Amino acid sequence: MRPIGDVLQQLHSGVTTSRMLVEQCLTNIANPDGEGARTFTRVNDRALQQADEADALLREGDTANKPLLGLPISVKDLFDVEGEVTTAGSVVLSEAPPADQDAAIIARLRDAGAVIIGRTNMTEFAYSGLGLNPHYGTPANPWDRAHRRIPGGSSSGAAISVTDDMAIAAIGTDTGGSVRIPSALCGLTGFKPTAGRIPLHGTVPLARSLDSVGPLAVTVDCCARLDAVLSGEIHASHPPLPLHNLKFGVLQGYVLEGLDDTTATAFHNALNALKEAGATTEPVEFPALARIPASNQTAAAEAYAWHRRSLATSGHRYDPHVSTRILHGANMLAADLLDLMQARREIIAESMQVFAGYDAILLPTTPIIAPSIADLEHDDAAYFNANGLMLRNTSIFNFLDGCGLSVPCHRNGEAPVGLMIAGTHGSDAHILRVGSAIEVALTPLRQ
Amino acid sequence: MRPIGDVLQQLHSGVTTSRMLVEQCLTNIANPDGEGARTFTRVNDRALQQADEADALLREGDTANKPLLGLPISVKDLFDVEGEVTTAGSVVLSEAPPADQDAAIIARLRDAGAVIIGRTNMTEFAYSGLGLNPHYGTPANPWDRAHRRIPGGSSSGAAISVTDDMAIAAIGTDTGGSVRIPSALCGLTGFKPTAGRIPLHGTVPLARSLDSVGPLAVTVDCCARLDAVLSGEIHASHPPLPLHNLKFGVLQGYVLEGLDDTTATAFHNALNALKEAGATTEPVEFPALARIPASNQTAAAEAYAWHRRSLATSGHRYDPHVSTRILHGANMLAADLLDLMQARREIIAESMQVFAGYDAILLPTTPIIAPSIADLEHDDAAYFNANGLMLRNTSIFNFLDGCGLSVPCHRNGEAPVGLMIAGTHGSDAHILRVGSAIEVALTPLRQ
Repeated sequence: MRPIGDVLQQLHSGVTTSRMLVEQCLTNIANPDGEGARTFTRVNDRALQQADEADALLREGDTANKPLLGLPISVKDLFDVEGEVTTAGSVVLSEAPPADQDAAIIARLRDAGAVIIGRTNMTEFAYSGLGLNPHYGTPANPWDRAHRRIPGGSSSGAAISVTDDMAIAAIGTDTGGSVRIPSALCGLTGFKPTAGRIPLHGTVPLARSLDSVGPLAVTVDCCARLDAVLSGEIHASHPPLPLHNLKFGVLQGYVLEGLDDTTATAFHNALNALKEAGATTEPVEFPALARIPASNQTAAAEAYAWHRRSLATSGHRYDPHVSTRILHGANMLAADLLDLMQARREIIAESMQVFAGYDAILLPTTPIIAPSIADLEHDDAAYFNANGLMLRNTSIFNFLDGCGLSVPCHRNGEAPVGLMIAGTHGSDAHILRVGSAIEVALTPLRQ
Repeated sequence: MRPIGDVLQQLHSGVTTSRMLVEQCLTNIANPDGEGARTFTRVNDRALQQADEADALLREGDTANKPLLGLPISVKDLFDVEGEVTTAGSVVLSEAPPADQDAAIIARLRDAGAVIIGRTNMTEFAYSGLGLNPHYGTPANPWDRAHRRIPGGSSSGAAISVTDDMAIAAIGTDTGGSVRIPSALCGLTGFKPTAGRIPLHGTVPLARSLDSVGPLAVTVDCCARLDAVLSGEIHASHPPLPLHNLKFGVLQGYVLEGLDDTTATAFHNALNALKEAGATTEPVEFPALARIPASNQTAAAEAYAWHRRSLATSGHRYDPHVSTRILHGANMLAADLLDLMQARREIIAESMQVFAGYDAILLPTTPIIAPSIADLEHDDAAYFNANGLMLRNTSIFNFLDGCGLSVPCHRNGEAPVGLMIAGTHGSDAHILRVGSAIEVALTPLRQ
């Protein structure tokens, strides 16, 4: 795992080539002892050719407006790629016609010079935070691999493609935490942007009012570089802000309940490190937080609206863990949905006021470290309990239409734990700069 | 009826005073032979005092940032006014507690120096384009008053308050045409802005996704001045654009079906006048237009979500014409609402492409002139048929989240007919400038 900035430097100075990078990724994907077969649903069979094209441009110095030139990037298998079938981790869609054009963000990645290395496995239809997939297998977390722990989801393959050097970075989606959860559980940095900043055209929806597209990568700077390409914005560098000028709100309430010891300790140590670096931290009570779980029930109805025809004919081919949840939305009345939408607007307005005084809101990305796959895949109660816990903290900022960055805050070699650095609607650039500062401050802690 | 600019000049030069204006309005409201009792649900008993305060400021020259200083303005009875009950034209709400603060737009009007002369009658809960109200009476159209024709709605009292010199201008709301329809039927100019530009806080909702707030007044310039205050934007003057540089799309399809002779002739003459003035007009086909009626079914569900508790306890006290329509939304499924929302997004995207080449889209505001009140109030079939016709053309631009201006295009003394000058999302300033040009070009025709 190397940061994008370093790899670009090596590419531009000729120390490495796109072909070398792509060959290494393909070798790792093909390794029968590795997780490649469960990480990718499809590998791009033109990746080497595209790498050679990138190398030609690099040799010619024709690199303007190509900030990702030659970098192998994986994409979650719910973004349309022209001429390929988009499965979204399902078998139902595996028989769908090939996409007739690239998703908006795929086109942007290509324009930026990225080599799409392949399409990554995911929770079927992105509807779980655990990352289990009964159709295509579940790639194991890089930590404690002997016990095969969950990667987190739904962008499960996305995370493992990066941790296992099968891609330099990955693009996922985040409707309730699906970028931040696998990032946290696998020791990566993941960014869920304000949803409206990145176009969803050509992306299989889960819940349109909550869906967002974001990167999983090695550092905050990697996420900022990818976010600029995904959003079509100019990449301004995000130099770390001086921590002694920053004021953080540590979110109180149920987000701090039920933390396992590893997570509680890592979170506690992270806050101490920030205070020692001069930041101000204070507990922040957000009274409307208690109303979010009851108000945040629209995803099932949104998913049902999209899936109902397919469920009627092919419901038996869905993962029951997924179809069960989608069907919860079947009988919701329009008036109830509208009440929930109104409640959401009111709670968002409250959050804008309560959070206005802080540079970011801090909380553990997930309350627990990754459990083992075996403990969940045959025990529905354990599955749904763990799923609820995994999504509990992250989904708050989808509901609030905000943004959130998860950075690792555990000691290297121990169970990964993520620190979430969250902000309100549109505060993305500030959160990335704050995140860069926090990343630096946590470095000693992690070694 | 005098344009705001003229009245302001008289106020600032001392030719008139706010007290004189307000006294005249109050006299007209109180005239037992007039429509005042059916036009206002409540008259501001502090209006004279506020006029005196405005006059004091005018004498002192303390008029900065008060573009409406001293002007008597009426407001539809669904905007909260601190300390008063907001009835929204219903008897159910007449027992509600008084509002504890002004609606956002009421506060803006007051800040701009307006004297709120009173609260105007309306279709109960704003849910009809005809303007009939069985609880508070129906003010008659100024044209052919002997036959008591409908004022149009739902901002019925708003229109009559202006035509009958009970206010200099009026503020209404427009969810499917409720500003533009009464403007067209009563010979006024009405502007429905892009909804998101004007805050709805403190306004009784009809259908949140479609509701907008706009002025009914004498000229396009009046509307532009009021729109600037309502939106909190700086009032840039909107000088008429040169017509020979403008290209108009004349919307084809069902919007031109079933026009009565008066409307067809007036519309035809208006287009000719624009061509003679040098404008380019061409028919524009918008294929998605045919999909709008079936897709534009969310208002009932939105209204039901807001009204259902009240309907359950007090449904018998609603106008059956209104409660019947609201109850159509009772059984809609969330998934169906979501499909309609998705269809709306797609049709809006198509409209942006089709309409991109035009300075404005032109169509008749309503297909027919005002029928008589008596013909509708005791004949449900006639009521619902006329209501559908009245809303047919206007509601398109609420659905498209655009804006629309209705200007009179009939000969003075004949039945009023409105020409709608419509635009896509956010094109408000351009539409107002285009409207000023059209208003000038139509002047000879109207005399």
